[in-house]
Amino acid sequence: MLTVNARATPGPGEPFEPVTIERRDVGPTDVLIDIAYAGICHSDIHTGRGEWGPVHYPMVTGHEIAGTVSAVGSEVTGFSVGDHAGVGCMVDSCRECDMCLAGREQDCRKGNVGTYDGVLDGKPTDGGYSEKIVVDESFALHVPDGIALEEAAPLMCAGITLYSPLKHWGAGPGKRVAIVGMGGLGHVGVKIAAAMGAEVTVISRTRSKEEDGKAFGADHYEATSEEGTYKRLANSFDLIVSTISAANEVVDYLKMLDVEGTFVTVGAPPEPFTVPAFALIGGRRSMAGSNIGGIAETQEMLDFCAEHGIGATVQVIDADQIDEAWDKVVGSDVRYRFVIDTATIAA
Amino acid sequence: MLTVNARATPGPGEPFEPVTIERRDVGPTDVLIDIAYAGICHSDIHTGRGEWGPVHYPMVTGHEIAGTVSAVGSEVTGFSVGDHAGVGCMVDSCRECDMCLAGREQDCRKGNVGTYDGVLDGKPTDGGYSEKIVVDESFALHVPDGIALEEAAPLMCAGITLYSPLKHWGAGPGKRVAIVGMGGLGHVGVKIAAAMGAEVTVISRTRSKEEDGKAFGADHYEATSEEGTYKRLANSFDLIVSTISAANEVVDYLKMLDVEGTFVTVGAPPEPFTVPAFALIGGRRSMAGSNIGGIAETQEMLDFCAEHGIGATVQVIDADQIDEAWDKVVGSDVRYRFVIDTATIAA
Repeated sequence: MLTVNARATPGPGEPFEPVTIERRDVGPTDVLIDIAYAGICHSDIHTGRGEWGPVHYPMVTGHEIAGTVSAVGSEVTGFSVGDHAGVGCMVDSCRECDMCLAGREQDCRKGNVGTYDGVLDGKPTDGGYSEKIVVDESFALHVPDGIALEEAAPLMCAGITLYSPLKHWGAGPGKRVAIVGMGGLGHVGVKIAAAMGAEVTVISRTRSKEEDGKAFGADHYEATSEEGTYKRLANSFDLIVSTISAANEVVDYLKMLDVEGTFVTVGAPPEPFTVPAFALIGGRRSMAGSNIGGIAETQEMLDFCAEHGIGATVQVIDADQIDEAWDKVVGSDVRYRFVIDTATIAA
Repeated sequence: MLTVNARATPGPGEPFEPVTIERRDVGPTDVLIDIAYAGICHSDIHTGRGEWGPVHYPMVTGHEIAGTVSAVGSEVTGFSVGDHAGVGCMVDSCRECDMCLAGREQDCRKGNVGTYDGVLDGKPTDGGYSEKIVVDESFALHVPDGIALEEAAPLMCAGITLYSPLKHWGAGPGKRVAIVGMGGLGHVGVKIAAAMGAEVTVISRTRSKEEDGKAFGADHYEATSEEGTYKRLANSFDLIVSTISAANEVVDYLKMLDVEGTFVTVGAPPEPFTVPAFALIGGRRSMAGSNIGGIAETQEMLDFCAEHGIGATVQVIDADQIDEAWDKVVGSDVRYRFVIDTATIAA
C-alpha cells in the first residue's frame, strides 16, 4: 500500500480538505503515475455535490489526470518509468463483454469502474486530486511529446468527449460544424473540429469569447443574445455539438440543422429535452448524445492533438483554490479549464 | 380541361360529398392516370379535418394513388398508355435546388407541391379520391407487374415512409429492428424489414395482431400491455421505427435501443417528445425523424416490393364509406389500409 496526499470533499457542498488515501501496491500489470496536474471537470462538481445521485464520501474527485510514470509492474509492456501518462474517466471494466472487446469500455455491459466514486476490489475509487495513482496499464494513456502535461490533463475527459462525436459524425472538410458553448468542453471541441478541417462556428451567449474562439480555429462566431441569430442560422449546420445544459432551447438548435443534420448533446441538462416530432421528421434530422470514448480512441485523440499542436487552454491553480474554482466553473468564470498543480496538494 | 368526378370534404369534420373537379389538359410532359384505387392515410384525416393547420376547402384528399395511364404528353418518355402507374405525396417541386437535384424532392428548398392542398399554377391541388389525375411524368411512379393496384396504392406513402428509414439506417441481416405499431404504416414496415433480412420484432399494444405480424414476416411479437415488456426489451434493438403518436412513451423506447441504436419516428405526435439527456448520452443513442422519400427512392421501393412479393394488406371500400373509414382509422379499426375503389366515386 502507498499512502498518498489528496484533497477530498467530506460531504455535499463541503469544502475540500487535505487527506491521505491508500493506493494499492503496483501489481504485475499496473503503472504508478506521479500526478502532475488534475483538471477540474463540471462532472466533478455534479458528482461531488451529490447532484447526480447518491455518492460516497469523503470523495477525491478528478478524472483528467496527467503525470509521469514512476513505477511499472513486472508484466507491463506499454509503459516505462519516465513516460508521460494520463488517466481519464475509467480505471477498469469487465474486459470480456462485446463492448469492451470492441474497445468501447465506456459502454461496458457490466458498467465500467469510474476513476472516482467507482468500486474496485470492493472499495470506492479515489480520483486525480491527489499526488499519485495506480492503474492497470490497459487504462493508462500515453501523453505524446509536444503536449504539456497541464494542457494534456483536460484532454482525458473534455478532449475525448468532443473528439469522439466529431469523428463519429464526420467533422472534416466540407462539413459545417457548430460548437454550442465555449467552456471547458467547447473550447477543445473548437480546436479539434478546426484541426479536422471542418467549417467551425462557435455559438455562444455573448461575443465575450469571440477573439479566443477565432484563435482556437473557429471560422465564425455567433452570439445568441443578439436578436435574430437563431432565425438567421436556420438550416446552417450538418453537425451541432452542444456542451450546454439549456434543454429548453433544443428546438432552436434543431432548426439550425440542415437536411440530415445531427444535434449531439454532450452536456446533460437536468431537465429533459422537449422535442416536437416535426423538428425531426422534416429533412430527416437527428438528435443524439455522446459520452467520452474508449481507451483506444482516447489514445487516438491524444495522438491527433499532438500532431495538430492542440492542448487545453488552462488556468493552473493551487489545491487550496479548488473550492473557489468549483464555484467559478459553475459560474462559467474560467478560461477555459482549471487544472490543479498537484505539487500544492500536501497540507 | 378535364372534368372529373371526385369526393370532397366541404369543411373540417364535414362528410364527404360527390363533386366534380377540373384536371389540367395533358401537357407535353404530363401523364393522365385513370385512378383505380386511392388509399386512406391518417394524414388525409389530420389535414382534411384541419388538425395540422389551415387548409383549403372543399378538399379532395388522397396521396396513395394507383391506376392506369390513359394518355401521355408529346414529350413523355417514361410512360405509355396502359402502364400501371401511381402518385404519392408530391406532384411537383422546384427541380432546381440542391435537394431536388439530389433526388430529395421531399426536402425541396422551396417546398414541394403536395398532391392535395398544395398550390400549383396558383390553384389548390386535388388528391386521389377522384377518378383521374394529371401529373408530370417526373412525379409519376411505375407500378411493377406483380403488385395488384389496390395493394400498390398504399405503398405510395406508407411504403416509402417505412422503406426509406429502414434502408437509411441499415435494416438487413444481423440488424435487430423493431416496428412500433402495426397499423397502415407499421404493417408495411414489417413486411419490408423482413424482406431486407433484418430480425424483426413487432411492438404493439396487445397480441390481437400477432398472427398477422408473424405472417407478414416478423420474427417476434411483443405486447406493451403485458407487465414487464418494456423492461425485458431493454438494450434489444439496433433500430426502432415508431409509427405511433404516443410521445410520452419515448423514453421507454429509447431504453430498448442497444448501444448506438436509433429510434426513428415516422409518426407525428401532437405533443412534443420528452427526452432526458442521459437516455441519449449513454451508449451514443440517437432519435430521428423521417418523412417519405424522393421520387427515385419511391420507385426503388416499388421495385423492391415487387421483387419480394410485397403489397399493402388492404380493405377495399366504396366511396360512400369514406367517412366511416376515416372514423375507423382514427379508432385503429382497419386491417391494415382502406383503399377506395374509384369506380364507385361517380354520384
